[in-house]
Amino acid sequence: MLTRCLGARRVRQIRRAFRHGAVTFLCLFLTVVVLRGTIGAGKFGTPQQDFDNLRHHLNSHRRVLEEQNSEKTTATTNNYVTFDMSTILVDEPLGKDEITRDPNAPYTLGPKITDWDQQRKRWLRQNPNFPNSIAPNKPRVLLVTGSSPKPCENPVGDHYLLKSIKNKIDYCRVHGIEIFYNFALFDAEMAGFWAKLPLIRKLLLSHPEVEFLWWMDSDAMFTDMAFEVPWERYKDHNFVLHGWNEMVYDEKNWIGLNTGSFLLRNSQWALDILDSWAPMGPKGKIRDEAGKLLTRELKNRPVFEADDQSAMVYLLATERDKWGDKVYLENAYYLHGYWGILVDRYEEMIDNYHPGFGDHRWPLVTHFVGCKPCGKFGDYPVERCLRQMDRAYNFGDNQILQMYGFTHNSLASKRVKRVRNESSNPLGVKDELGLLHPAFKAIRLPVSSS
Amino acid sequence: MLTRCLGARRVRQIRRAFRHGAVTFLCLFLTVVVLRGTIGAGKFGTPQQDFDNLRHHLNSHRRVLEEQNSEKTTATTNNYVTFDMSTILVDEPLGKDEITRDPNAPYTLGPKITDWDQQRKRWLRQNPNFPNSIAPNKPRVLLVTGSSPKPCENPVGDHYLLKSIKNKIDYCRVHGIEIFYNFALFDAEMAGFWAKLPLIRKLLLSHPEVEFLWWMDSDAMFTDMAFEVPWERYKDHNFVLHGWNEMVYDEKNWIGLNTGSFLLRNSQWALDILDSWAPMGPKGKIRDEAGKLLTRELKNRPVFEADDQSAMVYLLATERDKWGDKVYLENAYYLHGYWGILVDRYEEMIDNYHPGFGDHRWPLVTHFVGCKPCGKFGDYPVERCLRQMDRAYNFGDNQILQMYGFTHNSLASKRVKRVRNESSNPLGVKDELGLLHPAFKAIRLPVSSS
Repeated sequence: MLTRCLGARRVRQIRRAFRHGAVTFLCLFLTVVVLRGTIGAGKFGTPQQDFDNLRHHLNSHRRVLEEQNSEKTTATTNNYVTFDMSTILVDEPLGKDEITRDPNAPYTLGPKITDWDQQRKRWLRQNPNFPNSIAPNKPRVLLVTGSSPKPCENPVGDHYLLKSIKNKIDYCRVHGIEIFYNFALFDAEMAGFWAKLPLIRKLLLSHPEVEFLWWMDSDAMFTDMAFEVPWERYKDHNFVLHGWNEMVYDEKNWIGLNTGSFLLRNSQWALDILDSWAPMGPKGKIRDEAGKLLTRELKNRPVFEADDQSAMVYLLATERDKWGDKVYLENAYYLHGYWGILVDRYEEMIDNYHPGFGDHRWPLVTHFVGCKPCGKFGDYPVERCLRQMDRAYNFGDNQILQMYGFTHNSLASKRVKRVRNESSNPLGVKDELGLLHPAFKAIRLPVSSS
Repeated sequence: MLTRCLGARRVRQIRRAFRHGAVTFLCLFLTVVVLRGTIGAGKFGTPQQDFDNLRHHLNSHRRVLEEQNSEKTTATTNNYVTFDMSTILVDEPLGKDEITRDPNAPYTLGPKITDWDQQRKRWLRQNPNFPNSIAPNKPRVLLVTGSSPKPCENPVGDHYLLKSIKNKIDYCRVHGIEIFYNFALFDAEMAGFWAKLPLIRKLLLSHPEVEFLWWMDSDAMFTDMAFEVPWERYKDHNFVLHGWNEMVYDEKNWIGLNTGSFLLRNSQWALDILDSWAPMGPKGKIRDEAGKLLTRELKNRPVFEADDQSAMVYLLATERDKWGDKVYLENAYYLHGYWGILVDRYEEMIDNYHPGFGDHRWPLVTHFVGCKPCGKFGDYPVERCLRQMDRAYNFGDNQILQMYGFTHNSLASKRVKRVRNESSNPLGVKDELGLLHPAFKAIRLPVSSS
């Protein structure tokens, strides 16, 4: 009996020891993450200010990063430096059916396609009932996100995945955007943050009616339900990411752009850049070696296996002539917004502004970079993450609830309260933000020719 | 030290005792639940067979039910006989802002509205860009579902809520249906299975462009992605539920219909029946007393607080003249399908049929009646539930994956494998079920007059 107790106690002690190790490591991890997240940062938030702020942030963190280099391998092997919940798939063993290619052949996302624009144009002509635009200057958009098919290691994680998709359902319903939520791993070699590439290619080729595919990480939430993407601005571009030209093209800074939320036009160009983006992705030796190259070539990148974001910075920086003119690095609004510099300002935003700006005044997206609520964590940081994810969710949800005359008791509260009484003339009630029947959702289509 | 251990041990013993109690109770609970779920049951599944089968099932369960009556109060107070995850809200305390009405005044869902049809018609005329039909014989439909804003008591529950909404997103994307996922409790008095009433009324009045609202419990999943609801069949009806006329109108059987998945037309008639449906809902004395009435008046109903399903059976049975002609009790396909008699037949269905039937050959909906994966459970039953929910999810998901050339390794497997190779002529590949660009999703709208 007594020994059983002592045994139990020893186990507890060992556990505690482990936890302490984790905490130390966490600090390293979060620094890296904050740095990566800092893209789009800014105490005041105007693009130029963001930029200066970011420089400052980078300098102050250089030493930290250098220190981190001693821990490199840990960072890599622990696979801690991942930015998307879907990376849980990284740890899964490969099924026998899953390796389909000759390991010696160079990796490709699929058979080469060179005439996609013509194929797609022909299809659109033949299928007038599936137009690629749902209104003038309103392309048909498919928002793509996803997470692991397994329950989260951290049980509460699934609840936040649920809130995150509910949040996306709301934005997309209001803006007439379709959603594809992915649980599947289409290419075992491209597990983790690379899984989106084969998925995106597959969806582009399967849905010629989709003009823009919007990738969004599962840890990003819409916080401005009223902001409509300025589609017109991108009419001559194929790829829109949050980022800065100087940081990507001049500095080759690994956080010069963020791949957690981007727009990709369905086009031959998209297939081509996916092909050029993919080669660093295959798991194992290729991805590890590529990671070393990226850390060597990119500014401030700690050592870890190749990630899709660094690979894109590297691709654009080294082949600007080939891709640059069709890539739009957006920083006039938060297509991606780093949570660390936004979540504490929500009350300030509520006092001074209103939804619809999408920028530092009311961010379109709050991205919980590095907050892996689905992964195994513990202690303070994840709690801060979860508390702030609740705030971000409620901040966005209030804009949905106001349509129906409700609001959260506070940004910290799950409960809602009435903000106006029921009316016997419901259609007379105008919702402040005009989100019930927004002009940008109105459908205007030519009569089908069939 | 030793005492601490003994203390800990005692605690463990007490816990075990509790668990045993729970298990005993579980048996009662599941019987009730199976009974309720049996609606739409049938070993062979044709409507008539379902019906006979159900009679048999009822007789064999009568004794069990009578035994249960001794446990009545437990059942009520433990609030175990709930059929929807959203009922978790039942246990939450009321916030101060939430009781808005004079407790002595009779409960209403809101101010009386008598001219909704005219209000709505006028609005539709004035807003031609938000038509109530998206194609000929294709009404604009809003699917409404939801769950508790709190993480599940059973941590894995949230993962199944996530799978359940991903499943609904897929069906709705393929069929051109919008989704509203609710986390909010609009009326604290109507917590639990009654929460859908104020929510539905609010949505009908806020969205005149919506012709049909489709309520679906969070524990119901689409298992036939190809089946399009026969909207034409309901052109003269306002309310479509899975059920049988004989069982509702002749027998007043509390499981003569199921309110876990139903269609309600946006109309004055809908507001009126919601008003007549609601009075048994208010939590506390009213709901408890109503529960006694329902158990007295309805066939085979165990004693527990009034639930929305029993209340609807009672309303239709006692006021058939008022409502009957606009209510369509559907049993030609599984608008709701009880999981107990479907999940073990999936392989048989795969061998003999294909998606698109929606009935016993390939059920549109598999409803996990009584499988409260979000509630606190334990032991065998919930495991069976979860295993079968995975099977149902994968069974439905295979129809989505086949569009992209993949399928689950088995109905039990989260992993997917390729079923056809990538093509350089992707648009030449036809997906078996034609779900990529189904005719029923094609948009055909008149040119807007504005």
